[in-house]
Amino acid sequence: MTTITQLIAQIETRQPVLNKDALNEQQCLTDLAGVGSLSDADDTQLSFLADPRYVDKLGQTKAGCVLVTERYQAAVPASSIALVVPTPYLAYASASQLFAPSENSAYIHPTAVIDERAVIGEAVSIGAYCVIGKDVVLGARSHLSAHVVIEAGAQVGEDAVIKSHVVIGHDCVLGQHVRIHAGASIGAEGFGFAPTADPSTRGWERIAQLGKVIIGDYVRIGSNTCIDRGAINDTVLGSHVIVDNLVQIAHNVRIGDGTAIAAKTGIAGSTSIGKRCIIGGAVGINGHISITDDVTISAMSMVTKSIQRSGSYSSGTVAMPSNEWRRAAVAFRKLGQSTRTD
Amino acid sequence: MTTITQLIAQIETRQPVLNKDALNEQQCLTDLAGVGSLSDADDTQLSFLADPRYVDKLGQTKAGCVLVTERYQAAVPASSIALVVPTPYLAYASASQLFAPSENSAYIHPTAVIDERAVIGEAVSIGAYCVIGKDVVLGARSHLSAHVVIEAGAQVGEDAVIKSHVVIGHDCVLGQHVRIHAGASIGAEGFGFAPTADPSTRGWERIAQLGKVIIGDYVRIGSNTCIDRGAINDTVLGSHVIVDNLVQIAHNVRIGDGTAIAAKTGIAGSTSIGKRCIIGGAVGINGHISITDDVTISAMSMVTKSIQRSGSYSSGTVAMPSNEWRRAAVAFRKLGQSTRTD
Amino acid sequence: MTTITQLIAQIETRQPVLNKDALNEQQCLTDLAGVGSLSDADDTQLSFLADPRYVDKLGQTKAGCVLVTERYQAAVPASSIALVVPTPYLAYASASQLFAPSENSAYIHPTAVIDERAVIGEAVSIGAYCVIGKDVVLGARSHLSAHVVIEAGAQVGEDAVIKSHVVIGHDCVLGQHVRIHAGASIGAEGFGFAPTADPSTRGWERIAQLGKVIIGDYVRIGSNTCIDRGAINDTVLGSHVIVDNLVQIAHNVRIGDGTAIAAKTGIAGSTSIGKRCIIGGAVGINGHISITDDVTISAMSMVTKSIQRSGSYSSGTVAMPSNEWRRAAVAFRKLGQSTRTD
Repeated sequence: MTTITQLIAQIETRQPVLNKDALNEQQCLTDLAGVGSLSDADDTQLSFLADPRYVDKLGQTKAGCVLVTERYQAAVPASSIALVVPTPYLAYASASQLFAPSENSAYIHPTAVIDERAVIGEAVSIGAYCVIGKDVVLGARSHLSAHVVIEAGAQVGEDAVIKSHVVIGHDCVLGQHVRIHAGASIGAEGFGFAPTADPSTRGWERIAQLGKVIIGDYVRIGSNTCIDRGAINDTVLGSHVIVDNLVQIAHNVRIGDGTAIAAKTGIAGSTSIGKRCIIGGAVGINGHISITDDVTISAMSMVTKSIQRSGSYSSGTVAMPSNEWRRAAVAFRKLGQSTRTD
Repeated sequence: MTTITQLIAQIETRQPVLNKDALNEQQCLTDLAGVGSLSDADDTQLSFLADPRYVDKLGQTKAGCVLVTERYQAAVPASSIALVVPTPYLAYASASQLFAPSENSAYIHPTAVIDERAVIGEAVSIGAYCVIGKDVVLGARSHLSAHVVIEAGAQVGEDAVIKSHVVIGHDCVLGQHVRIHAGASIGAEGFGFAPTADPSTRGWERIAQLGKVIIGDYVRIGSNTCIDRGAINDTVLGSHVIVDNLVQIAHNVRIGDGTAIAAKTGIAGSTSIGKRCIIGGAVGINGHISITDDVTISAMSMVTKSIQRSGSYSSGTVAMPSNEWRRAAVAFRKLGQSTRTD
Repeated sequence: MTTITQLIAQIETRQPVLNKDALNEQQCLTDLAGVGSLSDADDTQLSFLADPRYVDKLGQTKAGCVLVTERYQAAVPASSIALVVPTPYLAYASASQLFAPSENSAYIHPTAVIDERAVIGEAVSIGAYCVIGKDVVLGARSHLSAHVVIEAGAQVGEDAVIKSHVVIGHDCVLGQHVRIHAGASIGAEGFGFAPTADPSTRGWERIAQLGKVIIGDYVRIGSNTCIDRGAINDTVLGSHVIVDNLVQIAHNVRIGDGTAIAAKTGIAGSTSIGKRCIIGGAVGINGHISITDDVTISAMSMVTKSIQRSGSYSSGTVAMPSNEWRRAAVAFRKLGQSTRTD
């Protein structure tokens, strides 16, 4: 259970609660047990109005507490405690963390295999069957679920949360407050091969991937996402980068601070992406190109060339009834046969 | 080895074998060892005619037994035993299960770490290095391969088959007869963040994902597929949902009974998909939309808006020689520059 | 550290070093510690000129040794040792392997669970918490990282490198010198179901996947890639096939020798791909089709039909400013409504 006072303190790590001085003692001590939408929340739950289109629901809400902007404060029912903030959605995000089950307290499971030369910080938690290699550095208060593998020489900063079956390759360097979800592969070998001259069949000579993965602070990596180590130099993610599930980040990619990447996107080798970009799901980005800061790319777009101007970019065609689509696809094909554009 | 009698019993869990009374005792006791195509099967193998276009091969088959509809019974060679069923392909599916190696008998490997407060059903099998958390409920006859992690409070129904390296997040609820393949992640945190107001760099405030994943009965999840837990409410898959490998199902998605989803498809957050849909491979479905029942979406389609009518939908363009494609792609681009459609 | 003499021996496993007899003893004993680009390398590092466009940088390089073709030998600064080879990029690939940290020497971790009926070759290395099933055959000098699962009856050839959390399904057969990265799933059940006749809801009858995965020699599989076992016959990859991360290879696919497949590509069931093909990232290839030898398919293409002629193929549209794209996408849609092509 969380009191309104605790809630306010948490919200104020990011923004002020503008009406906190107007709350009475009983309100401050009110306990909340969770979060609900305006329609569903009961009097033990917190809710919020992030989108003014839902203001009709605000008047009907049974939530115990509602996060609103000043403009909508008057519309909060008398049965609810209104907390007035500049950005209710951000306040909801901050507050939500109080209702999550806390990670286990510091504890190293006896089955964890920890090399004697690993340096383990204070108050860490290491789950069953984790394997921590030689010379690994694991920062204070980090939490590893079960079956995490950290290879020799890798460094993980303080306050990391690393979920089950994550692998962190040798010598990779992760910052503070990283959060890595189940099954992510960080620092596997990049996909680098040189064709051999073998006349009979194409063979491939493997290029050893001698770089690392370097990840900044407050980075989030989703489940089963792959971030490969660099060939010669490193693969680098800045701070505040958030990456969803099943994303492929190839060797030598560089991603600037604050960029968000949705699920199933792939970024080919040696491409550089700027700061504060928003990359939709299942986007494909070519190798050896550069995308500047503040670029938004919509889902499923194919980016083949560098983007030098901030803004929003898209490609692809959208679903339509299949019989119409067949004709359109044929017409597209004919565009290639008949049109001379060069 | 499986006798024809055993085969008939298995097929009849789904449909009648119409000519079973006409078989003699010797036929009923004939042993089969496997399955083969009409062309390849030998006299120890079962085969089937599912597609009438292959009827020519039926007359030549050396299979020991053939599943056919009544119409083609006469074309089965005298050397084969014909079993007549309404739907041979379904009969093959049912029968095939008799030839698979059986899962190990009930056995809990001594290395499994099982919390003392977990409730383990009868006759379960738990492989090496599994980790079962506090208050987990694991139904009778469930079979876990090696390295499965089930976090605290999760519930798995009876007769589950869960393969190596699967993670089931805390408090998720799975029905009866689920089948989950290697490396799948069920119940990882959804990708929810609020932008912070930090003026210098975009930061992100994590939204705790307070919902669960709830999965019905007879659900199949493929390898390395990710199904994230909900933000406030739950992510829900109905019963008889089948999902292939490397699929992304984001937080708060809802999927109706009987829907099939092929590999590499991604479904963004809070989208609702109806019953009995067929979703091809690598489809991308936008968030916060709704797709009605009985919709078929062809592979690689991009679905950006809700679909309210049952039927078949497609998008995309199909591969052509690259030099023609370059012209077509340029022509498409010009459509955007020259055409005014608004 | 690696001497120039050692470097030459390594390069000459693939191609001659044409000027080796002209090197003096001091040059031959020069030690190198790593690899760098022409711009970044210092005098302890090896570099190379693979692309003549960078010849300007060659004259300025501070690398201790440079791999060049005969044509550019004269441009190498006097401070560097030039090694003249027909194909510098291939020579770099060969040489790079000398600078990678060597895999651990032969060692079986005491926590590995190895069935007494498994046949383990000489000088293998098996990491913590690996699980090796009954009748597995593991070739000499193979190296398994932590948490690898090899199910009963699977065979792995000599000199394999298998990284953490890989699963190899029962009875699969892998050749010599395979290299499999973290989290790959090889031999999970293919996605095969027959619809049931259940009138109320669509159910699915699972088709047991009775085939195997068979993989040739010198095959590379990327992280979290999935290769499913066949339904009746096998899924087959030839030799010298290289596969990137997060690729889906469905049941009964066949892939010819020397083919390369980039990340996030999906190949649907029963499709056959020829030799020496180059398949870009996030390509989608339909099931039950055939692609001949020496086909190149560019990233994100959708291949719906068989390709019978060698050459380069593409599809899709490329990213453009979103407001232009919206008009183009609408125009594409109208192509389907207005054009009659049948």
